[in-house]
Amino acid sequence: MPTVKIVLEYDGSRYAGWQRQPDQPTIQEAVETALFQLTQQTVTVVGAGRTDSGVHALGQVVSFCIDRDWTPHEWTRGLNARLPEDVAVRSAAIMPDEFHARYSARGKLYEYRILNRPERPAVERGYFWHVYKPLDPEAMRQAAAFLVGSHNFTSFEGTLTDNEDPICQLQRLSLTQQGNLISIQAYADRFLKHMVRSIVGTLVEVGHGKRTPGSLADVLMAKDRTAAGRTAPAHGLFLIRVDYDSSPEDRP
Amino acid sequence: MPTVKIVLEYDGSRYAGWQRQPDQPTIQEAVETALFQLTQQTVTVVGAGRTDSGVHALGQVVSFCIDRDWTPHEWTRGLNARLPEDVAVRSAAIMPDEFHARYSARGKLYEYRILNRPERPAVERGYFWHVYKPLDPEAMRQAAAFLVGSHNFTSFEGTLTDNEDPICQLQRLSLTQQGNLISIQAYADRFLKHMVRSIVGTLVEVGHGKRTPGSLADVLMAKDRTAAGRTAPAHGLFLIRVDYDSSPEDRP
Repeated sequence: MPTVKIVLEYDGSRYAGWQRQPDQPTIQEAVETALFQLTQQTVTVVGAGRTDSGVHALGQVVSFCIDRDWTPHEWTRGLNARLPEDVAVRSAAIMPDEFHARYSARGKLYEYRILNRPERPAVERGYFWHVYKPLDPEAMRQAAAFLVGSHNFTSFEGTLTDNEDPICQLQRLSLTQQGNLISIQAYADRFLKHMVRSIVGTLVEVGHGKRTPGSLADVLMAKDRTAAGRTAPAHGLFLIRVDYDSSPEDRP
Repeated sequence: MPTVKIVLEYDGSRYAGWQRQPDQPTIQEAVETALFQLTQQTVTVVGAGRTDSGVHALGQVVSFCIDRDWTPHEWTRGLNARLPEDVAVRSAAIMPDEFHARYSARGKLYEYRILNRPERPAVERGYFWHVYKPLDPEAMRQAAAFLVGSHNFTSFEGTLTDNEDPICQLQRLSLTQQGNLISIQAYADRFLKHMVRSIVGTLVEVGHGKRTPGSLADVLMAKDRTAAGRTAPAHGLFLIRVDYDSSPEDRP
């Protein structure tokens, strides 16, 4: 049976995250429903990143095995005709049997968007976190530098996870500013639950002068969630890209 | 009575445009309702641009006269606490009595956003026009150059208007591209009804090779709406800025 890889874009606003749940709309369910409508087959799909409730994606990667010999174009067009308007296939590819969207992934790029101005936003307000008090981006950059590398990120891990390995190789944590929009990009081999959002929440506390940049080293060492800052809201977070061994875009 | 100027941002998606109408939600009504809740006074507000149903604004300008001696900060904070979440005040100022948001305006900047790629979008889909067939931006730029200047824009004017003067000085009509996002900016002293959207619809026909860039000169000359292309959808259009004589940002 062919293994199909699709790159998926979605607006997470009205979903309880990626992973299928009883009685709540999820992205996984939306994809599986569209696949069933298209193929009359019941298929379980795998997502590279299990995005939380409200998190968006521009490049989530999904894989599934299915008994249909269709072209990438047919998968893209067929699914886009059946998916809800807030979920869309960007591209599709037929992969070797051993391809698995989650296990084969080598790196993921997340972006967190902050609007930093006193007045609340009206346009595109579902796509960034509005932080009304002025931030110091330079202090946030200095703080971010302490987190780059291979570390135990337990202090930035959400509760109630059964994750056994808290070591992530955070290859990049960069901050760019354009007007009053601040974008934080994080690239790592893997991420713990809520990791990007709790890193962003902690950097914002640095940006407000409530923590020093250097204190981030202590936060890492503490291996305790209460040592870090608050978890930033979900709707500012985007899963931008997932890289694989064969990926031409395999760059941090 | 003080004259107050406010700069307003709104997501036009769920509104029947700027201008108050019976039985339909409008931005003007939202502002007047918030003003009444704040001041207990019934005030009619003037908007610089009467944006159509579904059109967004990042910098609409609104003026009103009211018997309250409040600071700009009090106006901003008070209105933002009462306006719906898709309408927000960016700033406020106390102006000379003769200031009038519409009659005092010297120039307006609109931006139209197009997403040009085969696959439909999911994220931010309410903020651009999805054009799936490839566009030729260079041809569109050449066509745009024929429209810059002081012209009779009747060919780009929506029907059913009582506008007497069809001459507009279009000082800038520029096209920028970033990945598959195309942004068209139009700056003029004044605009006719649907003018930006019918210009964009016509430029897109040029971008698809259905018209030559040079044919735009004939379209202008025709002074007939049927000579131009279709009206582009409202949700790609943003009123970005309104300039006044005293405005420090008075640049096309």
